[in-house]
Amino acid sequence: MKTTKEPAIKPTRQEDYSEWFQQVIKAADLAENSPVRGCMVIKPWGWSIWELIRDALDKRIKDTGHQNAYFPLFIPLSFLEKEAKHVEGFAKECAVVTHHRLEEKDGKLIPTGPLEEPLVIRPTSETIIGDAFSRWVKSWRDLPLLINQWANVVRWEMRTRLFMRTAEFLWQEGHTVHANEKEAREETLQMLEIYRELAEEHLAIPVILGEKSEGERFPGAVNTYCFEAMMQDRKALQAGTSHYLGQNFSKAFDIRFDTKEGGLDYGYTTSWGVTTRLIGALIMTHSDDDGLCLPPKVAPHQVVIIPVLNKPERADEVLSYCEKIKKDLSLHRCHIDKRDLRGGEKTWDWIKKGVPVRIEVGPRDVDSQSCMLARRDTGEKAPHSVDTLATTIPNILNEMQQGYFDRATAYQKEHTRTDITTFEQLKAFFTPKNVDKPEIHGGFVLAKWCGDPTTEPLLDELKISIRCLPLKQSGTEGKCVITGRPATLDAIFAKSY
Amino acid sequence: MKTTKEPAIKPTRQEDYSEWFQQVIKAADLAENSPVRGCMVIKPWGWSIWELIRDALDKRIKDTGHQNAYFPLFIPLSFLEKEAKHVEGFAKECAVVTHHRLEEKDGKLIPTGPLEEPLVIRPTSETIIGDAFSRWVKSWRDLPLLINQWANVVRWEMRTRLFMRTAEFLWQEGHTVHANEKEAREETLQMLEIYRELAEEHLAIPVILGEKSEGERFPGAVNTYCFEAMMQDRKALQAGTSHYLGQNFSKAFDIRFDTKEGGLDYGYTTSWGVTTRLIGALIMTHSDDDGLCLPPKVAPHQVVIIPVLNKPERADEVLSYCEKIKKDLSLHRCHIDKRDLRGGEKTWDWIKKGVPVRIEVGPRDVDSQSCMLARRDTGEKAPHSVDTLATTIPNILNEMQQGYFDRATAYQKEHTRTDITTFEQLKAFFTPKNVDKPEIHGGFVLAKWCGDPTTEPLLDELKISIRCLPLKQSGTEGKCVITGRPATLDAIFAKSY
Repeated sequence: MKTTKEPAIKPTRQEDYSEWFQQVIKAADLAENSPVRGCMVIKPWGWSIWELIRDALDKRIKDTGHQNAYFPLFIPLSFLEKEAKHVEGFAKECAVVTHHRLEEKDGKLIPTGPLEEPLVIRPTSETIIGDAFSRWVKSWRDLPLLINQWANVVRWEMRTRLFMRTAEFLWQEGHTVHANEKEAREETLQMLEIYRELAEEHLAIPVILGEKSEGERFPGAVNTYCFEAMMQDRKALQAGTSHYLGQNFSKAFDIRFDTKEGGLDYGYTTSWGVTTRLIGALIMTHSDDDGLCLPPKVAPHQVVIIPVLNKPERADEVLSYCEKIKKDLSLHRCHIDKRDLRGGEKTWDWIKKGVPVRIEVGPRDVDSQSCMLARRDTGEKAPHSVDTLATTIPNILNEMQQGYFDRATAYQKEHTRTDITTFEQLKAFFTPKNVDKPEIHGGFVLAKWCGDPTTEPLLDELKISIRCLPLKQSGTEGKCVITGRPATLDAIFAKSY
Repeated sequence: MKTTKEPAIKPTRQEDYSEWFQQVIKAADLAENSPVRGCMVIKPWGWSIWELIRDALDKRIKDTGHQNAYFPLFIPLSFLEKEAKHVEGFAKECAVVTHHRLEEKDGKLIPTGPLEEPLVIRPTSETIIGDAFSRWVKSWRDLPLLINQWANVVRWEMRTRLFMRTAEFLWQEGHTVHANEKEAREETLQMLEIYRELAEEHLAIPVILGEKSEGERFPGAVNTYCFEAMMQDRKALQAGTSHYLGQNFSKAFDIRFDTKEGGLDYGYTTSWGVTTRLIGALIMTHSDDDGLCLPPKVAPHQVVIIPVLNKPERADEVLSYCEKIKKDLSLHRCHIDKRDLRGGEKTWDWIKKGVPVRIEVGPRDVDSQSCMLARRDTGEKAPHSVDTLATTIPNILNEMQQGYFDRATAYQKEHTRTDITTFEQLKAFFTPKNVDKPEIHGGFVLAKWCGDPTTEPLLDELKISIRCLPLKQSGTEGKCVITGRPATLDAIFAKSY
């Protein structure tokens, strides 16, 4: 069990959640701000987590018949202009390339070689991919066209925060074309379901699948679906979206095909994406006041073996014992920390980095064929025989993966209110009790909504919004929590990132 | 054996090598030009090849102790200015971001929101990574720092060609810091050796490792090493480079560390990279007049099974027979082509895509428990028992992998002259015999060079250059092939891409 020592991260979650998040990232050495405004450097530990997320999702994307490809970083302005709502949505946050050389003048470099048509760095690729698809799709035989790309995108955000909102971020974006609305809609929901699997089964983050209200729709989409998760400050985080685009982009980019029946139709398209923000969600869902907690499936090292080398004459013996343990655990991602540091420093380093299991080995353990086994989730630390490690470790890892998920599920449930029916109650729930001191309050409210878009701005006062209309609708009748009018829709109300 | 049919690619290599290259890419559906000047779309088949190359190299990079990370796409102008030669080398081909929003004016979008300091899209990342390293490196205990990133970069090239030279391309770039010159130099050559392994063992491309002459050095490097391969038009292609940067960048970016001895020193840095150009090298080394030829290790499908479904009543039977074959070959990347196309169309599709082995199966084959087995390298096609496929296929794939390498090695040897000692001979070798008609001529010349950089421009007349000074130097004395002066250096002279 945990001792009553000081927490490794200061401030704690209760003291200042937002600053705690930054400090967890720093303590785990995940990423740092770069001198380029709003851009981050993803450091090796953060990158390894991204690789595990990427590989797990990439496999699912391929298993469902999609193929990866790669499209240009640049989008001509004329492409953006083709879909009116799309350009409206992205024009205010575009990095624009206007020149293609630099020249020295009075000792300073200045841009020269103006481009005939400025180029935008892709904020998303519906337009440049739509243009390619107009060449690739000719007949119903070419459909469905199921493409995905892993890429960097740029949205010039004014307020940025590591992993959560950065000017440049990494993501995958799927883009598909179908012969009819039904198939396109099925694809949109299939990919949302794959995101749910990724979030729940790999990241151990329970999510609510739902549809966005009109005001929160992707610019140019007919329907936008999302998955929302509750962070430990009880705010909602949208971790990914899947859009049914109808024929909006196929008409803008002329993606037409000869139908099986001998006619001509525009394709029905979808797009869907998740980003490096998933790492932000991961941190905010599981970590504690000692730092990062990693579900085993996305832990770059699942087990770290720490040799205690205080007796130089037995160092070789201890190290070869560690190698043997590593070999026994070869089914897991296992690392021996041979650094020339004190044992305590190493231990705290791996706690802050969120490694699920630590195995400490000293000369006495060699003698007794045992080791000290410590868990990141419970803080338990106890001697263990080495002979049975290979059977114990997978059980612990499974237990921990499930445990993180269960804990987060319980937290979400605990802080989701289903008994709020009036605006006054809503207001009370989302108002901090002590305005002088930051505190964690509120949560999710599942309540009725009349569906009228003009009612959404009334939520601004409470600094909340409709996060989604859950896919699972009760179908019951009630009163709109905003207006009191009759309402059938179930909606999730919350503060959000 | 090959029949005397028409080749699938027109023109042939002999008729017009450069156009043949474009047509091979088109026929194999590898990539296409995008409407954005100089940028390509990498299509699924091309991308799958890149993934195989990436994964093979990534493993080697990690096995040698490097860690992946990710750095910003943007580089502030002030960073570029810090290393004089570096900026000189890249200023003429930089995409420059000057604005961060778009506004509509008279129905057209115009850039607005000017940046205080323009940003360059990374043409390479020594500067932005050097800045990060200055924060990461404090003590000799932090060294060596071994980092790699997979990223897109942009160099605004005026004349572009798919895979060979594009404005945006994909690559990996390694960046390391060491405590002394010796270790940094060893790293530089270690990574060159890893590139050789990748090229020769995976891509089946024989390469010559060497050092660049001063005029061809990376801007800011002390030494630039490269590997050069001979394409089928006998030109040299530089497929990757590894640079020893000395203390040039560590001084420019203040990468300093406390030495073990209690002093303070600047780090010794290296950088090294290979790009999507490797796919260009792959195409130009192995492909023939029927299209792409893929060495099995980089073939997305190593075996394609083609069911012949001309008897509808036996279609199910044939398909389940195909599934059984696929299961028997589960150690290999195997694909069943179930498309609703004529058998001949499918066959030619996979020939043009370079798939190593095709297995055709019809109802009669089911009856006789056999199949038709065809090889892409020799064109041989013969019946084969299904029982022994699982033992035959790995042998064929190994043979083919080695065969492509041997063929390319023989070609390089055949067209490398070692007996040329005068400028007149050099000129004769590199002058086409028939100037009215494009023809494949020349090759590599391994000859003596005096090492005087002022002699290199004399090669412009022959449209050749010194490709490298091979790492394996004979040490013999002779006469410089350009000037006739005494010379000891061995150099490779060739036309290049």
